[in-house]
Amino acid sequence: MQLGMVGLGRMGANMSLRLLRGGHEIVAYDRSPEPALALKSEGAIPATSLEDVIAKLKAPRHVWVMVPSGAPVQQTLEALAPLLDKGDCVIDGGNSNYKDSVVRGEMLAARGIHFLDCGTSGGIWGLANGFCLMIGGPDEAFQRMEPVFKTLAPPDGYARMGPSGSGHYVKMIHNGIEYGLLQAYAEGFELLDASTYDLDLQQISALWNKGSVVRSWLLELAESALAKDPGLQQIAGYVEDSGEGRWTIQEAIDRDVPALVLAYSLFARFRSRQQESFGAKLIAALRNEFGGPAVRPVDGDK
Amino acid sequence: MQLGMVGLGRMGANMSLRLLRGGHEIVAYDRSPEPALALKSEGAIPATSLEDVIAKLKAPRHVWVMVPSGAPVQQTLEALAPLLDKGDCVIDGGNSNYKDSVVRGEMLAARGIHFLDCGTSGGIWGLANGFCLMIGGPDEAFQRMEPVFKTLAPPDGYARMGPSGSGHYVKMIHNGIEYGLLQAYAEGFELLDASTYDLDLQQISALWNKGSVVRSWLLELAESALAKDPGLQQIAGYVEDSGEGRWTIQEAIDRDVPALVLAYSLFARFRSRQQESFGAKLIAALRNEFGGPAVRPVDGDK
Repeated sequence: MQLGMVGLGRMGANMSLRLLRGGHEIVAYDRSPEPALALKSEGAIPATSLEDVIAKLKAPRHVWVMVPSGAPVQQTLEALAPLLDKGDCVIDGGNSNYKDSVVRGEMLAARGIHFLDCGTSGGIWGLANGFCLMIGGPDEAFQRMEPVFKTLAPPDGYARMGPSGSGHYVKMIHNGIEYGLLQAYAEGFELLDASTYDLDLQQISALWNKGSVVRSWLLELAESALAKDPGLQQIAGYVEDSGEGRWTIQEAIDRDVPALVLAYSLFARFRSRQQESFGAKLIAALRNEFGGPAVRPVDGDK
Repeated sequence: MQLGMVGLGRMGANMSLRLLRGGHEIVAYDRSPEPALALKSEGAIPATSLEDVIAKLKAPRHVWVMVPSGAPVQQTLEALAPLLDKGDCVIDGGNSNYKDSVVRGEMLAARGIHFLDCGTSGGIWGLANGFCLMIGGPDEAFQRMEPVFKTLAPPDGYARMGPSGSGHYVKMIHNGIEYGLLQAYAEGFELLDASTYDLDLQQISALWNKGSVVRSWLLELAESALAKDPGLQQIAGYVEDSGEGRWTIQEAIDRDVPALVLAYSLFARFRSRQQESFGAKLIAALRNEFGGPAVRPVDGDK
């Protein structure tokens, strides 16, 4: 079917490619002109503005928004809304906060425009393997867009989670779990590295992927990373976070759910970004105050 | 090759079956006579005592010990040692503490007997899929036993980790990681269950296994468990632990490695086994002491 793709970053471009290869017609647009022109050679119709996207689509129009969450999604939807007609459909495939998606769904529904919130997992491997899609919103719109979901996802790799916001809710929890899984592997591999045995971490990650109970796709990534750089010498222990980990913890607080592993996995990322811990400085100072060991000066000399 | 299997519980029996189907000759023994007789119909040679096992094996003998860790392993090895000759080989395939395995390796080496410590993962699915084997001990013994490892494991599913104890060390960390992975899924699914959306947890676990970044073998087990009992109505939230989770945390302390997720995942199991938390009682009492809300009496009425 015909689909406008707004936002041609790594995800949007790969999704466009997978849809084009699946026989869909893609009107491609990005703020910068290069990505749309690059997709032209793959069969996409490049557009030069949101207005141009809408002009190139036949009614009822379908627009997939794949831009960063927060202000970019909000601005794009606000710019799209007056250009669209009753019966058109917009899908937000990014990592938006599910509460925002509920409000946006209402805003668009008031204009008779369908809105679907779609959590999209699979990263850069999605092009080859398919993207796992968690979709929220009206069932009518979901059914209309199914040909697109079917092409984007691997077999059985998409489903409607429930009403508006539920797709991004499930994706939020998915990413929260991912934080915890990564931290569990992180601590285990740090223990392997700290062992008095001279262990081959790449060998172990590869071995564990063969029939052990901790095998997973994340462990396959570990195997790949350790094969490239067995001691991770070239990689700083500095870890960013995006919104979903934080929102998962906020949701745990709102729902009175104990979720310490997910919370700590987020906090461990904060710690990874500190050159120095004020908390640790305080403990060192207090131990010194009550007559404990001498503090270590800031320059690191004893 | 010819192998004595001592201990025919779920793991030992399945491993014997896989080895028999792979063309090996198995002398099978368990404290109770039934499992060895059951394996006889599958081609095993049943033995009635450790002495009988040894009498039925040709030198150099190979004995796989698959009994519970701790005292059962220790007693079995102490009983076997005087029955064995120089050049014989014993494998402990259970979840022994790696420090015990080092001592046992030395004890047997002093008699000229080879000892391999083998961490075995795969659970009851190992019979069909193969067991993932992490092996520590002398390279000579490892090479001699390779035909057995090759049959037990899936392709590339076994490897020598290093000297004595390293197999059980790597298995210990493997299990420690498993605790953390399970707790991450546990918290995420509890958040899905607590959501204001009426989510289908079985559908979500199945979906996530199709191309999402949290896909794993443990998530496939979740899918299976939730298919049988979508609300987990029939399962109490009571979780046992075996030794490896505890030893992982002890190792983290010994090696100065921060491993909060693995530690908390163990402590969460302790909490799951408490009907009542003395710590929570203390907090309730103190809030009441400083004029906070009234305490809830033990009978649960307000």
